[in-house]
Amino acid sequence: MSTREIEFFFDIGSSYSYLAAHVIDALGQRTGTPVRWRPFLLGGVFKATGNDMPARIMAKARYMIVDMDRWAEQYGVPFEINSRFPLVTLRTMRVLAGVELEHPEKVRPMALALFRAMWAEDRDPTSDEVLREAARAGGLDPEATLALADAQPAKDRLRASSDEAVARGAFGAPTMFVGDQMFWGNDRLDHLERFLKKG
Amino acid sequence: MSTREIEFFFDIGSSYSYLAAHVIDALGQRTGTPVRWRPFLLGGVFKATGNDMPARIMAKARYMIVDMDRWAEQYGVPFEINSRFPLVTLRTMRVLAGVELEHPEKVRPMALALFRAMWAEDRDPTSDEVLREAARAGGLDPEATLALADAQPAKDRLRASSDEAVARGAFGAPTMFVGDQMFWGNDRLDHLERFLKKG
Repeated sequence: MSTREIEFFFDIGSSYSYLAAHVIDALGQRTGTPVRWRPFLLGGVFKATGNDMPARIMAKARYMIVDMDRWAEQYGVPFEINSRFPLVTLRTMRVLAGVELEHPEKVRPMALALFRAMWAEDRDPTSDEVLREAARAGGLDPEATLALADAQPAKDRLRASSDEAVARGAFGAPTMFVGDQMFWGNDRLDHLERFLKKG
Repeated sequence: MSTREIEFFFDIGSSYSYLAAHVIDALGQRTGTPVRWRPFLLGGVFKATGNDMPARIMAKARYMIVDMDRWAEQYGVPFEINSRFPLVTLRTMRVLAGVELEHPEKVRPMALALFRAMWAEDRDPTSDEVLREAARAGGLDPEATLALADAQPAKDRLRASSDEAVARGAFGAPTMFVGDQMFWGNDRLDHLERFLKKG
């Protein structure tokens, strides 16, 4: 019996996190490994590591659209580039970090609703309206959830999770850990699965 | 019948190009698509696009070693980080561009010998010794091949190929094209294969 788990660090503003979010739980089931959804702030990770958004390079930004379309087709998920991208997701991620503290099992359904708003419906995942809807999708009280955006424990949790990810080697999103083994990007989920199946 | 081909842009100094070099021809055979090996200068592509070496970010550099080890194991190819990395491969790539002009079918065997020296044997692929050996591996005259490093047509060809790749959207290596469809990285060979199999 293994007590291993997959820690899935994600940011709602990251399109490749959106892709990974759609397939990570199935991977966990195939390998008998629980998945822990861990909100972090990609902007903070970039700042701490000196990394930068891939989309800063124009040629890369253009390619990412094509690349995302190919992945979305492969995974069978809807994808539309958000007209607000790149978006400061601090408020959204603080709310999720607050939810993680109080109701960790609700992070996943709430995050999936926010990902959909951001990457399939061209809506603003930092808005009260979308946050309320996502809270309801997670079975949470909308107003209490919204209030987490300004709650100190939620702020502290988000910062601590981002710092922790950096300390463990992260520089981008999504980042998956199994203990000290790190995997970066939805395109490394195959490596993660091979690693887990080796035992 | 298709007249399509895979254009495989690579730089000997790029570890992910090394990985792709080991599997691209098998992909071509599986899909009935000829592969054209096209030397270009990754440093020139970075300069033109404003992109930068992934290894500039310390956390990314550390992860790349782990990531390369995983790929090497998956592909069953030897890998050892070159103690000279990052290396200016201008001389090597000029020679290959010259070979491409005169004996295009010899680029592949010569490049494979150079990739091995760089990424499996910790040798200097810009040295006369390694270049001569690689020329012999390609069935070419060592001294005549070495002389290409200073030949104007070889220099012009390398620059033209790098400029062409950038004009078509490239920003890194390896980059594969099938007409106007671009695929970046050995980790997108699956996408390339799916594309080719769709017809």
